[in-house]
Amino acid sequence: MTARPNELTAVEAARRIEVGELTVEALVRACLERIDEREPDIAAWAHLDREQVLAAAIAHDGAGPMHGVPVGVKDIVDTVDAPTTYGSPIYRDHWPETDAVCVNRIHAAGGTVLGKTVTTEFAARYPGPTRNPHDVRHSPGGSSSGSAAAVADCMVPLGIGTQTAGSVIRPAAFCGVYGYKATYGLLSFSGIRHYAESVDTLGCMARSVEDLAFFRDVLLGVTPVPLEPFPGRPRLGLCRTHHWDEADEATRTCLEDGARRLAAAGMEVEDVDLPAGMEDSLEVYNRIQQFEGARCLGPDFDAHPDLLSVDARALRELGMAVDAASYRDAVRRHYEWRAATDEAFAGYDAVLTPSAAGEATRGLRFTGDIAFNYLWTALHLPAVTIPAFEGPQGLPIGLQLVAPRHADDRVLSVAARVAQHLA
Amino acid sequence: MTARPNELTAVEAARRIEVGELTVEALVRACLERIDEREPDIAAWAHLDREQVLAAAIAHDGAGPMHGVPVGVKDIVDTVDAPTTYGSPIYRDHWPETDAVCVNRIHAAGGTVLGKTVTTEFAARYPGPTRNPHDVRHSPGGSSSGSAAAVADCMVPLGIGTQTAGSVIRPAAFCGVYGYKATYGLLSFSGIRHYAESVDTLGCMARSVEDLAFFRDVLLGVTPVPLEPFPGRPRLGLCRTHHWDEADEATRTCLEDGARRLAAAGMEVEDVDLPAGMEDSLEVYNRIQQFEGARCLGPDFDAHPDLLSVDARALRELGMAVDAASYRDAVRRHYEWRAATDEAFAGYDAVLTPSAAGEATRGLRFTGDIAFNYLWTALHLPAVTIPAFEGPQGLPIGLQLVAPRHADDRVLSVAARVAQHLA
Repeated sequence: MTARPNELTAVEAARRIEVGELTVEALVRACLERIDEREPDIAAWAHLDREQVLAAAIAHDGAGPMHGVPVGVKDIVDTVDAPTTYGSPIYRDHWPETDAVCVNRIHAAGGTVLGKTVTTEFAARYPGPTRNPHDVRHSPGGSSSGSAAAVADCMVPLGIGTQTAGSVIRPAAFCGVYGYKATYGLLSFSGIRHYAESVDTLGCMARSVEDLAFFRDVLLGVTPVPLEPFPGRPRLGLCRTHHWDEADEATRTCLEDGARRLAAAGMEVEDVDLPAGMEDSLEVYNRIQQFEGARCLGPDFDAHPDLLSVDARALRELGMAVDAASYRDAVRRHYEWRAATDEAFAGYDAVLTPSAAGEATRGLRFTGDIAFNYLWTALHLPAVTIPAFEGPQGLPIGLQLVAPRHADDRVLSVAARVAQHLA
Repeated sequence: MTARPNELTAVEAARRIEVGELTVEALVRACLERIDEREPDIAAWAHLDREQVLAAAIAHDGAGPMHGVPVGVKDIVDTVDAPTTYGSPIYRDHWPETDAVCVNRIHAAGGTVLGKTVTTEFAARYPGPTRNPHDVRHSPGGSSSGSAAAVADCMVPLGIGTQTAGSVIRPAAFCGVYGYKATYGLLSFSGIRHYAESVDTLGCMARSVEDLAFFRDVLLGVTPVPLEPFPGRPRLGLCRTHHWDEADEATRTCLEDGARRLAAAGMEVEDVDLPAGMEDSLEVYNRIQQFEGARCLGPDFDAHPDLLSVDARALRELGMAVDAASYRDAVRRHYEWRAATDEAFAGYDAVLTPSAAGEATRGLRFTGDIAFNYLWTALHLPAVTIPAFEGPQGLPIGLQLVAPRHADDRVLSVAARVAQHLA
């Protein structure tokens, strides 16, 4: 049976449009049909104007490296053609005057913004209505909930996400798709609502590693080139981190089994430790997230305190209580840890680690534990999650690969190889 | 003769309001009178609504650590109460829905936003109409042109600036005021138009070091505490940098004379070099500024190419020609240089270096050379400029102090001591 257009990867759909086997209109129609069918259960979209999108698809000339391929854009990203609510009732009717840089890059590459995907409030903790396509009783993860669910459910091949703790990797893992968080600063954050500026990072979701690499090039504003196959035998580190005991048994077993299978497939795998002195890394990270997060919330907190969630108000209170010296100390420790981890991981082509502490959390209130995510975000490392395993509840469990800062190409190439064996 | 209220420093004005010797209204009226008198010559303000500001001043209860003290806010900073043009005709009628975090901090501290000050287009090269108060035939520097000129001309005691290359320190030096650029990331940039995200930094101008420290606390979102006097004898490095020959003779002489006078006053002063391997630092910096700057301009370039200046179009073209590998290489070198410079400067309480290559440039077209600014911005170091000298044209020449990342308190304390001897 041939795949329906909405089930194609972005790279394959773009290729078919380029050679005339598929039209932008047919692709967008297939995505919209899938959304019509599934959205009542999944609630992945914050805004989607079917007529506008279809008219644009019909008018699209199929040019550009994206050839009209549609993207779901997380609703903390500014868009001129759609309202941008940041997941907050304060911004229910907010229409930005300027596209975020990443949206401009999608347009410039000939991509189609299909609509805005659900985000938690201000990309923080308070969840939206999105459900996990694998089991609607479970959370899709967050904060990039809608993008992960929409990509997983074949509503759209590509989704934009952002990560301050684990907001790309964890929802991608929970929903069983591929996710990529860039090296901090590599992809422009301009025009995106900030949560905690020193760690806010752009990323994306897709249904293949090739798509992640392709979309990364688009977002970076360079001409996409096919992902180079990793040359030779990848040398992998296995990093359990000091949070290992917080992963559930299935996750720990999956990761260790996965490492064994990769070793059996000829890759070198050995244990690698984090640099010494990082035992309190979660507390240090929290200081930064809270200090910066509370200040970013300031304008909304002062103008509309009654329209903030309990979670946002709690963040505000925690962050205003962090003093300058303790914030500064946390930032300095992050500087040191970044350099030390780049060095500790330099001998590996990628480092394996859990994507999340377990399967998707039951219920929609909690988008999941950040234990296996915040650290790589704080360290500014590129990270990829692969839908490698299935857990005891029948939900996806991811395998995460990280690498030193700006080794994004390498970690994507290794991820493609690893996916051949595990996904 | 007693100073007029608009001539007071912010700290002194706040003190007088607190004890009932001055009212917010009288202070704001004095500032507005000064503006009425001088604005036709100086053109420091992009937007100023006299009635609105006066009504707010009359209604102000004088509370908060700022006690109503007014601030000029650079017009690339989002404000709800005033249009925000980013120095571009594209945004002539742009009214943001949310204050930038720094504006929220000013309001939360009981400060008054007097109005928006002139910025170059998108805080880059293309100048606004502002003139140097010391000689209107000369540039005030840029991109924070209006804030520097307004503070220098006693139109307002405090100004917000931002720096991507030298946009706080150089205009402050050209206009003969104190300027401070924070450690990168210390002060929120949320709600401010980006130019080049990995180096964009918030800063401010004032007429004393105490005011810079006071305002820094406000912008950081902590309760202001008086600047601690530097304990003991400051140990100073003198760093000429590899751009030394690009400074004019007067600037070189001033800096060396200044260093001698500080040594004569009992401070330790010795030469310090930049870490090895930074000879091409300008080219490396330019790659980053251009790569990121071109992408930040994308949404406006695509929507309104005809409304961009020649300078913006040139930046766009240069930046789109920088490839990803060469951008990544530049970022990696910045990582290394930051760590190496923190270490090289760690033995000094502050490092002396020119604030600019010379006096304010003649004419308004060129806001000045970045040679003595971009490096400290790229290195993420805190920097302070002191109006220490006068040049052969009778225009101010500044002395710049820099220190390792997050030694902001120390460099401000040392600057206060140095200012006692030189300013």
